[in-house]
Amino acid sequence: MAFQLEALDKLINELTRLPGIGEKTAQRLALHILKTGQEYSRAIRDALEDVENNVRHCSQCYSYTDRTDLCRYCEDPGRDDSLICVVEEAPDVIRVESIGSFKGRYHVLQGAISPLEGVSPEDLRIQELIDRVDRGQRGEGPEIKEVMLVLDADLEGDTTALYLAKLLHPKGVRLTRIAHGVPFGSDIDYIDQRTLGRALQNRVEL
Amino acid sequence: MAFQLEALDKLINELTRLPGIGEKTAQRLALHILKTGQEYSRAIRDALEDVENNVRHCSQCYSYTDRTDLCRYCEDPGRDDSLICVVEEAPDVIRVESIGSFKGRYHVLQGAISPLEGVSPEDLRIQELIDRVDRGQRGEGPEIKEVMLVLDADLEGDTTALYLAKLLHPKGVRLTRIAHGVPFGSDIDYIDQRTLGRALQNRVEL
Repeated sequence: MAFQLEALDKLINELTRLPGIGEKTAQRLALHILKTGQEYSRAIRDALEDVENNVRHCSQCYSYTDRTDLCRYCEDPGRDDSLICVVEEAPDVIRVESIGSFKGRYHVLQGAISPLEGVSPEDLRIQELIDRVDRGQRGEGPEIKEVMLVLDADLEGDTTALYLAKLLHPKGVRLTRIAHGVPFGSDIDYIDQRTLGRALQNRVEL
Repeated sequence: MAFQLEALDKLINELTRLPGIGEKTAQRLALHILKTGQEYSRAIRDALEDVENNVRHCSQCYSYTDRTDLCRYCEDPGRDDSLICVVEEAPDVIRVESIGSFKGRYHVLQGAISPLEGVSPEDLRIQELIDRVDRGQRGEGPEIKEVMLVLDADLEGDTTALYLAKLLHPKGVRLTRIAHGVPFGSDIDYIDQRTLGRALQNRVEL
Protein backbone atom coordinates (compact mmCIF):
# COMPACT_ATOMS: atom_id res chain seq x y z
CA MET A 1 0.00 0.00 0.00
CA ALA A 2 1.80 3.11 -1.20
CA PHE A 3 0.40 6.54 -0.48
CA GLN A 4 1.59 7.98 -3.78
CA LEU A 5 2.74 10.95 -1.74
CA GLU A 6 6.47 11.18 -2.24
CA ALA A 7 7.23 12.77 1.14
CA LEU A 8 5.18 10.25 3.12
CA ASP A 9 6.54 7.24 1.25
CA LYS A 10 10.10 8.51 1.83
CA LEU A 11 9.46 8.82 5.58
CA ILE A 12 7.97 5.31 5.71
CA ASN A 13 10.98 4.02 3.82
CA GLU A 14 13.43 5.59 6.29
CA LEU A 15 11.48 4.18 9.25
CA THR A 16 11.61 0.61 7.87
CA ARG A 17 15.39 0.80 8.31
CA LEU A 18 14.88 0.75 12.10
CA PRO A 19 15.28 -2.63 13.85
CA GLY A 20 12.01 -4.53 14.29
CA ILE A 21 10.03 -2.00 12.23
CA GLY A 22 8.42 -3.54 9.14
CA GLU A 23 6.49 -1.87 6.33
CA LYS A 24 3.16 -1.98 8.17
CA THR A 25 4.53 -0.60 11.46
CA ALA A 26 6.46 2.13 9.63
CA GLN A 27 3.20 3.21 7.95
CA ARG A 28 1.44 3.31 11.31
CA LEU A 29 4.25 5.39 12.85
CA ALA A 30 4.43 7.82 9.91
CA LEU A 31 0.65 8.31 9.91
CA HIS A 32 0.68 8.82 13.69
CA ILE A 33 3.35 11.52 13.33
CA LEU A 34 1.36 13.12 10.50
CA LYS A 35 -1.87 13.03 12.51
CA THR A 36 -0.34 14.25 15.77
CA GLY A 37 0.82 17.38 14.01
CA GLN A 38 3.85 19.42 13.05
CA GLU A 39 4.77 20.24 16.65
CA TYR A 40 5.50 16.60 17.44
CA SER A 41 7.31 16.09 14.14
CA ARG A 42 9.51 19.07 14.93
CA ALA A 43 10.15 17.76 18.46
CA ILE A 44 11.49 14.50 17.01
CA ARG A 45 13.65 16.43 14.53
CA ASP A 46 15.07 18.62 17.29
CA ALA A 47 15.79 15.58 19.45
CA LEU A 48 17.59 13.85 16.56
CA GLU A 49 19.64 16.97 15.83
CA ASP A 50 20.57 17.30 19.51
CA VAL A 51 21.81 13.71 19.56
CA GLU A 52 23.78 14.27 16.35
CA ASN A 53 25.44 17.36 17.80
CA ASN A 54 25.95 16.37 21.42
CA VAL A 55 26.39 12.64 21.82
CA ARG A 56 29.83 11.27 20.98
CA HIS A 57 32.22 8.55 22.08
CA CYS A 58 34.51 9.13 25.05
CA SER A 59 38.05 9.38 23.69
CA GLN A 60 39.37 6.94 26.30
CA CYS A 61 36.72 4.28 26.99
CA TYR A 62 34.41 4.76 23.93
CA SER A 63 31.20 4.86 25.94
CA TYR A 64 28.67 7.56 24.99
CA THR A 65 29.14 11.00 26.45
CA ASP A 66 27.88 14.53 25.91
CA ARG A 67 31.12 16.02 27.26
CA THR A 68 33.80 17.27 24.93
CA ASP A 69 36.60 14.89 25.93
CA LEU A 70 36.37 12.22 28.64
CA CYS A 71 33.06 10.76 29.86
CA ARG A 72 31.77 10.99 33.43
CA TYR A 73 33.11 7.52 34.26
CA CYS A 74 36.64 8.29 33.04
CA GLU A 75 36.73 11.64 34.84
CA ASP A 76 35.22 10.53 38.17
CA PRO A 77 38.12 10.74 40.69
CA GLY A 78 36.36 8.33 43.06
CA ARG A 79 36.77 5.30 40.79
CA ASP A 80 39.36 2.52 40.94
CA ASP A 81 41.84 3.04 38.11
CA SER A 82 43.31 -0.46 38.42
CA LEU A 83 40.10 -2.27 37.38
CA ILE A 84 38.63 -2.04 33.86
CA CYS A 85 35.24 -3.48 32.94
CA VAL A 86 35.18 -4.44 29.23
CA VAL A 87 31.78 -4.45 27.49
CA GLU A 88 30.66 -4.96 23.88
CA GLU A 89 28.41 -1.93 23.40
CA ALA A 90 28.06 1.50 25.02
CA PRO A 91 24.60 0.79 26.50
CA ASP A 92 26.11 -2.15 28.42
CA VAL A 93 27.92 0.44 30.56
CA ILE A 94 24.54 1.69 31.79
CA ARG A 95 23.52 -1.87 32.61
CA VAL A 96 26.64 -2.45 34.73
CA GLU A 97 26.18 0.98 36.35
CA SER A 98 22.60 0.11 37.30
CA ILE A 99 23.88 -2.61 39.68
CA GLY A 100 25.38 0.28 41.66
CA SER A 101 28.35 -1.62 43.08
CA PHE A 102 30.96 -1.40 40.31
CA LYS A 103 33.42 1.42 40.92
CA GLY A 104 36.13 0.77 38.33
CA ARG A 105 36.64 2.20 34.83
CA TYR A 106 35.12 1.03 31.55
CA HIS A 107 36.21 0.08 28.05
CA VAL A 108 33.71 -0.37 25.21
CA LEU A 109 34.88 -2.71 22.42
CA GLN A 110 32.10 -1.49 20.07
CA GLY A 111 31.19 -5.05 19.14
CA ALA A 112 32.46 -8.62 19.46
CA ILE A 113 34.65 -10.76 17.19
CA SER A 114 32.42 -12.57 14.70
CA PRO A 115 33.99 -14.33 11.69
CA LEU A 116 30.47 -15.09 10.42
CA GLU A 117 29.51 -11.42 10.31
CA GLY A 118 32.98 -10.36 9.16
CA VAL A 119 33.90 -8.56 12.41
CA SER A 120 37.60 -9.02 13.04
CA PRO A 121 39.65 -7.78 16.05
CA GLU A 122 40.84 -4.78 13.99
CA ASP A 123 37.25 -3.55 13.70
CA LEU A 124 36.98 -3.31 17.49
CA ARG A 125 38.60 -1.11 20.13
CA ILE A 126 40.86 -3.98 21.26
CA GLN A 127 44.15 -2.27 20.39
CA GLU A 128 43.01 0.76 22.40
CA LEU A 129 42.43 -1.52 25.42
CA ILE A 130 45.90 -3.05 25.07
CA ASP A 131 47.34 0.49 24.77
CA ARG A 132 45.67 1.45 28.06
CA VAL A 133 47.25 -1.58 29.78
CA ASP A 134 50.64 -0.89 28.16
CA ARG A 135 50.63 2.78 29.16
CA GLY A 136 50.02 1.70 32.77
CA GLN A 137 52.88 -0.76 32.65
CA ARG A 138 55.23 1.88 31.23
CA GLY A 139 54.19 4.22 34.05
CA GLU A 140 52.56 6.68 31.63
CA GLY A 141 49.09 6.09 33.05
CA PRO A 142 47.35 4.37 35.95
CA GLU A 143 48.41 0.73 36.40
CA ILE A 144 45.68 -1.74 35.40
CA LYS A 145 45.66 -4.83 37.61
CA GLU A 146 42.44 -6.49 36.48
CA VAL A 147 40.40 -6.57 33.26
CA MET A 148 36.87 -7.87 33.87
CA LEU A 149 34.93 -9.05 30.81
CA VAL A 150 31.18 -8.43 30.76
CA LEU A 151 30.50 -9.93 27.31
CA ASP A 152 27.43 -11.66 25.93
CA ALA A 153 27.21 -15.38 26.74
CA ASP A 154 27.31 -16.43 23.09
CA LEU A 155 29.81 -17.63 20.48
CA GLU A 156 30.98 -14.08 19.68
CA GLY A 157 31.45 -13.27 23.38
CA ASP A 158 33.41 -16.49 23.93
CA THR A 159 35.63 -15.85 20.88
CA THR A 160 36.35 -12.29 22.02
CA ALA A 161 37.16 -13.48 25.55
CA LEU A 162 39.63 -16.07 24.25
CA TYR A 163 41.27 -13.52 21.95
CA LEU A 164 41.67 -11.01 24.79
CA ALA A 165 43.08 -13.74 27.06
CA LYS A 166 45.76 -14.51 24.46
CA LEU A 167 46.80 -10.83 24.41
CA LEU A 168 46.52 -10.01 28.11
CA HIS A 169 47.87 -13.14 29.84
CA PRO A 170 51.49 -12.51 28.69
CA LYS A 171 51.26 -9.06 30.26
CA GLY A 172 50.48 -10.51 33.69
CA VAL A 173 47.14 -8.70 33.97
CA ARG A 174 44.42 -10.52 35.89
CA LEU A 175 41.62 -11.34 33.42
CA THR A 176 38.17 -12.31 34.69
CA ARG A 177 34.75 -12.90 33.15
CA ILE A 178 31.33 -12.66 34.78
CA ALA A 179 29.88 -15.98 35.95
CA HIS A 180 27.61 -17.96 33.68
CA GLY A 181 24.96 -19.90 35.53
CA VAL A 182 21.34 -20.14 36.52
CA PRO A 183 19.64 -16.69 36.48
CA PHE A 184 18.30 -15.41 39.79
CA GLY A 185 14.73 -16.52 40.49
CA SER A 186 14.63 -19.14 37.75
CA ASP A 187 13.30 -22.68 37.89
CA ILE A 188 15.87 -25.47 37.25
CA ASP A 189 13.27 -27.30 35.11
CA TYR A 190 13.38 -24.57 32.50
CA ILE A 191 17.14 -24.04 32.27
CA ASP A 192 18.78 -25.26 29.05
CA GLN A 193 21.53 -27.91 29.18
CA ARG A 194 24.42 -25.62 28.27
CA THR A 195 23.57 -23.09 30.99
CA LEU A 196 23.16 -25.87 33.55
CA GLY A 197 26.44 -27.42 32.40
CA ARG A 198 28.29 -24.13 32.94
CA ALA A 199 26.56 -23.63 36.29
CA LEU A 200 27.77 -27.06 37.49
CA GLN A 201 31.27 -26.41 36.21
CA ASN A 202 31.42 -23.02 37.96
CA ARG A 203 29.91 -24.23 41.26
CA VAL A 204 31.05 -22.36 44.38
CA GLU A 205 31.90 -23.53 47.92
CA LEU A 206 29.29 -22.78 50.58
CA MET B 1 17.63 2.66 32.63
CA ALA B 2 18.46 6.28 31.84
CA PHE B 3 21.55 7.19 29.87
CA GLN B 4 22.13 10.38 31.85
CA LEU B 5 22.77 11.99 28.46
CA GLU B 6 20.18 14.71 28.11
CA ALA B 7 20.00 14.56 24.30
CA LEU B 8 19.63 10.77 24.14
CA ASP B 9 17.05 10.64 26.92
CA LYS B 10 15.04 13.37 25.17
CA LEU B 11 15.04 11.40 21.90
CA ILE B 12 13.97 8.21 23.72
CA ASN B 13 11.22 10.18 25.41
CA GLU B 14 9.90 11.53 22.07
CA LEU B 15 9.95 8.05 20.55
CA THR B 16 7.89 6.55 23.39
CA ARG B 17 5.03 8.82 22.25
CA LEU B 18 4.71 6.68 19.09
CA PRO B 19 1.98 4.00 19.10
CA GLY B 20 3.21 0.57 20.22
CA ILE B 21 6.66 1.88 21.14
CA GLY B 22 7.49 1.37 24.83
CA GLU B 23 10.49 2.55 26.83
CA LYS B 24 12.61 -0.48 25.90
CA THR B 25 11.86 -0.32 22.16
CA ALA B 26 12.42 3.47 22.10
CA GLN B 27 15.86 2.89 23.63
CA ARG B 28 16.66 0.27 21.01
CA LEU B 29 15.56 2.59 18.19
CA ALA B 30 17.47 5.60 19.56
CA LEU B 31 20.64 3.55 20.01
CA HIS B 32 20.26 2.10 16.52
CA ILE B 33 20.01 5.61 15.06
CA LEU B 34 23.01 6.71 17.12
CA LYS B 35 25.05 3.69 16.03
CA THR B 36 24.07 3.86 12.36
CA GLY B 37 25.45 7.37 12.19
CA GLN B 38 24.60 10.97 11.50
CA GLU B 39 23.78 10.38 7.84
CA TYR B 40 20.80 8.19 8.73
CA SER B 41 19.69 10.55 11.50
CA ARG B 42 19.75 13.43 9.00
CA ALA B 43 17.81 11.34 6.46
CA ILE B 44 15.01 10.84 9.01
CA ARG B 45 15.03 14.55 9.85
CA ASP B 46 14.82 15.50 6.18
CA ALA B 47 11.96 13.04 5.61
CA LEU B 48 10.05 14.45 8.59
CA GLU B 49 10.57 18.02 7.39
CA ASP B 50 9.40 17.06 3.90
CA VAL B 51 6.20 15.60 5.31
CA GLU B 52 5.65 18.71 7.46
CA ASN B 53 6.06 20.98 4.46
CA ASN B 54 4.38 18.97 1.72
CA VAL B 55 1.63 16.73 3.06
CA ARG B 56 -1.66 18.45 3.83
CA HIS B 57 -5.38 17.75 3.74
CA CYS B 58 -7.32 18.18 0.51
CA SER B 59 -9.58 21.20 0.95
CA GLN B 60 -12.60 19.31 -0.39
CA CYS B 61 -12.39 15.66 0.75
CA TYR B 62 -9.77 15.94 3.56
CA SER B 63 -7.65 13.03 2.35
CA TYR B 64 -3.86 13.54 2.33
CA THR B 65 -2.34 15.29 -0.66
CA ASP B 66 0.93 16.95 -1.64
CA ARG B 67 -0.87 19.26 -4.07
CA THR B 68 -1.68 22.83 -3.14
CA ASP B 69 -5.46 22.64 -3.35
CA LEU B 70 -7.48 19.57 -4.39
CA CYS B 71 -6.12 16.02 -4.16
CA ARG B 72 -5.68 13.69 -7.14
CA TYR B 73 -9.03 12.01 -6.43
CA CYS B 74 -10.98 15.27 -6.37
CA GLU B 75 -9.29 16.56 -9.52
CA ASP B 76 -9.49 13.35 -11.60
CA PRO B 77 -12.04 14.14 -14.39
CA GLY B 78 -12.66 10.40 -14.98
CA ARG B 79 -14.44 9.85 -11.67
CA ASP B 80 -18.15 9.70 -10.93
CA ASP B 81 -19.17 12.92 -9.16
CA SER B 82 -22.52 11.53 -8.03
CA LEU B 83 -21.03 8.87 -5.71
CA ILE B 84 -19.10 9.73 -2.53
CA CYS B 85 -17.27 7.13 -0.46
CA VAL B 86 -17.11 8.24 3.20
CA VAL B 87 -14.22 6.90 5.31
CA GLU B 88 -13.00 7.57 8.86
CA GLU B 89 -9.31 8.26 8.23
CA ALA B 90 -7.21 9.39 5.27
CA PRO B 91 -5.32 6.08 4.92
CA ASP B 92 -8.68 4.31 4.39
CA VAL B 93 -8.82 6.06 1.01
CA ILE B 94 -5.71 4.13 -0.05
CA ARG B 95 -7.32 0.88 1.10
CA VAL B 96 -10.45 1.51 -0.99
CA GLU B 97 -8.28 2.59 -3.94
CA SER B 98 -6.27 -0.66 -3.72
CA ILE B 99 -9.41 -2.65 -4.72
CA GLY B 100 -9.14 -0.85 -8.05
CA SER B 101 -12.84 -0.82 -8.89
CA PHE B 102 -14.14 2.27 -7.05
CA LYS B 103 -14.35 5.28 -9.35
CA GLY B 104 -16.30 7.81 -7.27
CA ARG B 105 -15.13 10.64 -5.02
CA TYR B 106 -14.09 10.50 -1.37
CA HIS B 107 -14.85 12.24 1.90
CA VAL B 108 -12.69 11.71 5.01
CA LEU B 109 -14.49 12.31 8.32
CA GLN B 110 -11.20 12.40 10.25
CA GLY B 111 -12.57 10.07 12.91
CA ALA B 112 -15.81 8.50 14.10
CA ILE B 113 -18.37 9.62 16.70
CA SER B 114 -17.34 8.25 20.09
CA PRO B 115 -19.05 9.56 23.24
CA LEU B 116 -16.63 7.45 25.32
CA GLU B 117 -13.58 9.20 23.85
CA GLY B 118 -15.33 12.57 23.72
CA VAL B 119 -15.51 12.74 19.91
CA SER B 120 -18.75 14.48 18.93
CA PRO B 121 -20.07 15.15 15.40
CA GLU B 122 -18.70 18.72 15.54
CA ASP B 123 -15.15 17.36 15.84
CA LEU B 124 -15.54 15.55 12.51
CA ARG B 125 -15.89 16.70 8.89
CA ILE B 126 -19.61 15.84 8.89
CA GLN B 127 -20.87 19.39 8.25
CA GLU B 128 -18.47 19.60 5.28
CA LEU B 129 -20.04 16.40 3.86
CA ILE B 130 -23.56 17.80 4.28
CA ASP B 131 -22.38 21.04 2.60
CA ARG B 132 -21.14 19.05 -0.40
CA VAL B 133 -24.57 17.37 -0.72
CA ASP B 134 -26.40 20.70 -0.25
CA ARG B 135 -24.26 22.49 -2.85
CA GLY B 136 -25.15 19.76 -5.36
CA GLN B 137 -28.87 20.07 -4.59
CA ARG B 138 -28.70 23.86 -5.01
CA GLY B 139 -26.99 23.35 -8.37
CA GLU B 140 -23.76 24.96 -7.15
CA GLY B 141 -21.77 21.75 -7.50
CA PRO B 142 -22.09 18.21 -8.87
CA GLU B 143 -25.25 16.41 -7.72
CA ILE B 144 -24.53 13.64 -5.21
CA LYS B 145 -26.88 10.67 -5.65
CA GLU B 146 -25.27 8.14 -3.34
CA VAL B 147 -23.17 8.33 -0.17
CA MET B 148 -21.42 5.00 0.52
CA LEU B 149 -20.11 4.48 4.07
CA VAL B 150 -16.87 2.53 4.47
CA LEU B 151 -16.65 2.78 8.27
CA ASP B 152 -15.14 0.43 10.83
CA ALA B 153 -17.45 -2.40 11.92
CA ASP B 154 -17.50 -1.29 15.56
CA LEU B 155 -19.63 0.76 17.94
CA GLU B 156 -18.15 4.08 16.74
CA GLY B 157 -18.70 3.15 13.08
CA ASP B 158 -22.32 2.14 13.80
CA THR B 159 -23.00 5.36 15.73
CA THR B 160 -21.54 7.48 12.95
CA ALA B 161 -23.58 5.62 10.32
CA LEU B 162 -26.83 6.17 12.25
CA TYR B 163 -26.03 9.85 12.73
CA LEU B 164 -25.29 10.35 9.02
CA ALA B 165 -28.51 8.47 8.12
CA LYS B 166 -30.50 10.91 10.27
CA LEU B 167 -28.99 13.86 8.37
CA LEU B 168 -28.97 12.46 4.83
CA HIS B 169 -32.29 10.56 4.58
CA PRO B 170 -34.41 13.78 4.65
CA LYS B 171 -32.36 15.03 1.69
CA GLY B 172 -33.34 12.04 -0.43
CA VAL B 173 -29.74 10.91 -0.95
CA ARG B 174 -29.20 7.17 -1.26
CA LEU B 175 -27.11 6.06 1.74
CA THR B 176 -25.34 2.68 1.69
CA ARG B 177 -22.84 0.89 3.91
CA ILE B 178 -20.40 -1.88 2.97
CA ALA B 179 -21.60 -5.40 3.79
CA HIS B 180 -20.68 -7.01 7.08
CA GLY B 181 -20.25 -10.75 6.87
CA VAL B 182 -17.86 -13.65 6.75
CA PRO B 183 -14.40 -12.58 5.44
CA PHE B 184 -13.22 -14.18 2.21
CA GLY B 185 -11.34 -17.45 2.76
CA SER B 186 -12.39 -17.85 6.39
CA ASP B 187 -13.61 -20.96 8.20
CA ILE B 188 -17.17 -20.77 9.63
CA ASP B 189 -15.93 -22.53 12.80
CA TYR B 190 -13.81 -19.53 13.73
CA ILE B 191 -16.29 -16.72 13.01
CA ASP B 192 -17.67 -14.94 16.07
CA GLN B 193 -21.41 -14.90 16.76
CA ARG B 194 -22.02 -11.24 15.94
CA THR B 195 -20.32 -11.49 12.55
CA LEU B 196 -22.22 -14.67 11.72
CA GLY B 197 -25.46 -13.03 12.88
CA ARG B 198 -24.93 -10.09 10.53
CA ALA B 199 -23.93 -12.43 7.69
CA LEU B 200 -27.21 -14.38 8.07
CA GLN B 201 -29.22 -11.17 8.25
CA ASN B 202 -27.55 -9.80 5.09
CA ARG B 203 -27.79 -13.06 3.11
CA VAL B 204 -28.08 -12.67 -0.68
CA GLU B 205 -30.10 -14.57 -3.35
CA LEU B 206 -28.15 -17.02 -5.51
